[in-house]
Amino acid sequence: MPTVVLIGTLDTKGREHLFMRDCLLAAGLDVVLVDIGVLAEPPVSPDVTAAEVAAAAGASLDALRFTREGSDTRAVALAAMERGATSIVRRLHAQGRCDAMLGAAGSGGSTVISGVMRAMPLGMPKLLVSTMAASAAAFFGTRDITIMHSVTDIAGLNRVSTMILRNAALAVAGMVNGRELTDGGGKPLVAITMFGVTTPGVLRVQERLEQAGFDTIVFHAVGSGGRAMEQMIDDGLIDGVVDYTISELTDEHLGGVFGAGPDRLTAAGRRGLPQVVVPGAIEVLNFGPRATVPRRFDVPERRLIVHNPHVCAVRTTQSEAVELARILSGKLNRATGPTAVLLPLQGLDSYQQRPDGPFIDEEADAAFFAELRRTLRPNIPCREEPLNINHPVFADAVAETFLTFWRERRDRPEAKP
Amino acid sequence: MPTVVLIGTLDTKGREHLFMRDCLLAAGLDVVLVDIGVLAEPPVSPDVTAAEVAAAAGASLDALRFTREGSDTRAVALAAMERGATSIVRRLHAQGRCDAMLGAAGSGGSTVISGVMRAMPLGMPKLLVSTMAASAAAFFGTRDITIMHSVTDIAGLNRVSTMILRNAALAVAGMVNGRELTDGGGKPLVAITMFGVTTPGVLRVQERLEQAGFDTIVFHAVGSGGRAMEQMIDDGLIDGVVDYTISELTDEHLGGVFGAGPDRLTAAGRRGLPQVVVPGAIEVLNFGPRATVPRRFDVPERRLIVHNPHVCAVRTTQSEAVELARILSGKLNRATGPTAVLLPLQGLDSYQQRPDGPFIDEEADAAFFAELRRTLRPNIPCREEPLNINHPVFADAVAETFLTFWRERRDRPEAKP
Repeated sequence: MPTVVLIGTLDTKGREHLFMRDCLLAAGLDVVLVDIGVLAEPPVSPDVTAAEVAAAAGASLDALRFTREGSDTRAVALAAMERGATSIVRRLHAQGRCDAMLGAAGSGGSTVISGVMRAMPLGMPKLLVSTMAASAAAFFGTRDITIMHSVTDIAGLNRVSTMILRNAALAVAGMVNGRELTDGGGKPLVAITMFGVTTPGVLRVQERLEQAGFDTIVFHAVGSGGRAMEQMIDDGLIDGVVDYTISELTDEHLGGVFGAGPDRLTAAGRRGLPQVVVPGAIEVLNFGPRATVPRRFDVPERRLIVHNPHVCAVRTTQSEAVELARILSGKLNRATGPTAVLLPLQGLDSYQQRPDGPFIDEEADAAFFAELRRTLRPNIPCREEPLNINHPVFADAVAETFLTFWRERRDRPEAKP
Repeated sequence: MPTVVLIGTLDTKGREHLFMRDCLLAAGLDVVLVDIGVLAEPPVSPDVTAAEVAAAAGASLDALRFTREGSDTRAVALAAMERGATSIVRRLHAQGRCDAMLGAAGSGGSTVISGVMRAMPLGMPKLLVSTMAASAAAFFGTRDITIMHSVTDIAGLNRVSTMILRNAALAVAGMVNGRELTDGGGKPLVAITMFGVTTPGVLRVQERLEQAGFDTIVFHAVGSGGRAMEQMIDDGLIDGVVDYTISELTDEHLGGVFGAGPDRLTAAGRRGLPQVVVPGAIEVLNFGPRATVPRRFDVPERRLIVHNPHVCAVRTTQSEAVELARILSGKLNRATGPTAVLLPLQGLDSYQQRPDGPFIDEEADAAFFAELRRTLRPNIPCREEPLNINHPVFADAVAETFLTFWRERRDRPEAKP
């Protein structure tokens, strides 16, 4: 029988979780009830106690419970319970005892529960009923979490709260019970990164790959997109990568707003996936509205484009471009699978469209290309095309490079069918 | 057979909605497919076309479609489609052909679809798969909307997107198919408004009412709470009101951050519900962090309390207090049901705790009480107690006043059983 991990602060919200447990049991599901409350003994007996959760984080519940009130203490307790619960739910999942997660919480509980949910695989149903609608964005992270607005405080069972909590339990039951209804299809899946200024090239690559029998999945390279892609690769959901837009490296290195963390452009190499990399938009450093550009970048020597009211783009300098070439080659040199680089010499995005694109800087770009060639591992092919990144012939060359990798891979005996 | 209204911009996301339709049909549900796309003809034929949606808003789809690109044009089209779709889905609901709503959308579509969902009753399942996790708070509003983070763009069916869209459809199917599993209970439900500084009094009222056989539902009076309560009263979900914290009137009148709109404190009176009103915290005007208090309120003559790093409270002046008394009596004088006011002469919240609460201002409060008595309709009882609002004897008097109304109501022949 499929099992739902039902998780909450049972000291303050015990009745509500028992109500949801009844709904899940009535829908024919098993339930593992996990307590993450640190304030008091719960009025119900859970399957996993708060003391066990604390212990899984190497902490003592008594210590978490009896420390004096204060925001640091509270934060320490929440962090410990999140760590412990993540470890326990991961173990339940590995044992086949977590087919879905459900919880209902206020501010602190939503933080802990969404943290555990973010550690669970994509596609596993995870539903959080939360009073903290305003913080939903932070709870989602890069995971397919479902958040139901509780509307009222989660404090008592009444005509309104039972309606909402029942819907939450039934939604999870529907997801779990219907799991086998349809099939996701078996085509190999290629991830592609995109910006507005690289869109024509990406659409062309996408079209070519779909004609060749692939599914594609496009990520908007604004930080969250790159992070989600790296995570999906690590989850084993992606079969190949065309990394066509990598200015997340620039933002990460120079403090722009679209950084995707230090692990960007590592997962495909680590897992040995075929990847074709184009340094699209790497000359672009992104900030928010015009007024938020830091003073050190807001100088007359720098070119600056107000992309829209929310995004302002700054052109990198030659020395920054050279540093970025080294960062890129450092990442690619560690790749364990087939890897190639294609360089569009007539512009890395539509900001560099010839003849008069505002971000054209021949010297800086030439230095970037030269440093990249100099520092890349010799057995990583680095092909140049005298075209803009959005030119269809360039995009076709990228798609063809990927398809060649794929064919060679399939010809090797260890490749999957 | 229960029916799900499936709504989306079918011109750009037709395939994805057809996929979800198949999932819903496989789960044994009927589907009404509504198109709100204004860019092009959809590749599928919906049950309600975009032209019909536009017409329901008194607009022509051609006009919406062919106007030149530009943010105003786009906003006009979105507003028209939201208006039209709301009217159509409301009609479907009245005809018993909308048991749930489901949609998947990016930025513009999420705005339209969540707007329609906010117009639908509480408890009716409403699930939106959205790429715009960061805007989730705005999409929820005061409704029990469920938002599933799409993680990737909603652009194509692949291994990842089918997993997520299938879960969305199955969650809705679970909610609809399980509707009769359990029962919400039949106790009458009393709404109570609360602030941190009125909490002891509210908890005492709540305890008294629950002992007397009522369910209670508490709203945090920070704008969203008051709005949600007014809407639930209008939805017929609430049987009586103890309005114990009304500084949302102050914020609405003077431009604070916790305003709840002009309709606050009107729904109970309009629907004839028994209501007991205590002007809790009405002397408090709320702003965000200390630095955000507007200059005209940040003057030495005003008392100001940093409640926490996120909230700064400003004491109203005597003339403002008198205006607020008139606003309050103006609202209560229009009430059609049993209405009473109780005045805690020793302080409207814990900021006015005797002997030295920082917001004590005997003159301003006396002027407020006098103006309220002078302007209230004579047949609205206005009782005074020489106690603080958080004193248990005061809270008991409030609860007893409500219970008396309830008993009198039940004794009248037209009262519901």
